[in-house]
Amino acid sequence: MSNNLAPWRSILSRALHRNRSLTNARYFQLATINVKGEPANRTVVFRGFLEETNQLQIITDSRSEKIDQINHNSSSEICWYFPKTREQFRISGNLTIIDKNNVKQSIRVRVWQKLSDAARQQFTWPEPGQPLSDHQENFSLPTPSEKKPFPPFVLLLFTPKKVDHLELRSQPHQRIIYYLDDKKMWMTQAVNP
Amino acid sequence: MSNNLAPWRSILSRALHRNRSLTNARYFQLATINVKGEPANRTVVFRGFLEETNQLQIITDSRSEKIDQINHNSSSEICWYFPKTREQFRISGNLTIIDKNNVKQSIRVRVWQKLSDAARQQFTWPEPGQPLSDHQENFSLPTPSEKKPFPPFVLLLFTPKKVDHLELRSQPHQRIIYYLDDKKMWMTQAVNP
Repeated sequence: MSNNLAPWRSILSRALHRNRSLTNARYFQLATINVKGEPANRTVVFRGFLEETNQLQIITDSRSEKIDQINHNSSSEICWYFPKTREQFRISGNLTIIDKNNVKQSIRVRVWQKLSDAARQQFTWPEPGQPLSDHQENFSLPTPSEKKPFPPFVLLLFTPKKVDHLELRSQPHQRIIYYLDDKKMWMTQAVNP
Repeated sequence: MSNNLAPWRSILSRALHRNRSLTNARYFQLATINVKGEPANRTVVFRGFLEETNQLQIITDSRSEKIDQINHNSSSEICWYFPKTREQFRISGNLTIIDKNNVKQSIRVRVWQKLSDAARQQFTWPEPGQPLSDHQENFSLPTPSEKKPFPPFVLLLFTPKKVDHLELRSQPHQRIIYYLDDKKMWMTQAVNP
């Protein structure tokens, strides 16, 4: 994939800027397919783009159901709604898992080091999704060092292949589709909303 | 399925009430699987529950890609994040299409009649997702009558089978899973967040 900034990047940056007063403008919904072939959908936090790429960074826990799902089927769609400007980005693409065994440790370390203590501490909690632990003290373990990622910390890289941008503020609504052509160049098409 | 109110209904009602000052608290993200087997994810508006059931009502256009997707695979997951109370409901289940040919016309008519004129007018617009129509006047056709649903108007009924409720405000986070057992009774399980 080309490392050039895709044409939708400036549009997304503008939305992030105009909605910056809302904490949840940095949250989006990530859909994957579970091992039974059913859709799974959850809110995640946008952790910025990987430098000099169009890949979105997301973090997760290696014990999360997402990991099995992505290993089974890496395709995914982000739905990102910006309440203040009433616009939506649907971004389809594929997820790559950067876990403790991946060679790309430097990018995993960089994202770990930017986390808050509260975010880092969550990786010490008992296994997510299992029956609630009777040992509440297991949710108060010491915060791991910022130097080295705690083993269950996983960086996900989302590589977009299509972006569907919808603006609800104008009447009629405006809708533009950005997609990669056969030569991996970004193309733009205005469509009916 | 039992027509009794599921135990998660009061929890969801409370979230809707506490977030009522935010228009977008009535929006959620609906994930489906497209005909290529990839996830699709978009924001939709919650149109209330079908009376005396636990089925969520959503509206769409018969020309939308969703319809082909649901005909191919009806499984779906809703992700509903409430910004003010910082809680999330992930609702998995199946979608049923109530279009102009369905026998259940009375429920389709009831939802149509509750729509705003602006919402009704959208069903007269040119085919969604097609290259932008050169004829802008096609986006200004007369608003259809509120009496009878315009043909492309579709009601979707979402039948939940599992609800995963996560509260981020408490530390540690609280997470409860509600699921239907073999006898179609709702069960509750607290799990690690």
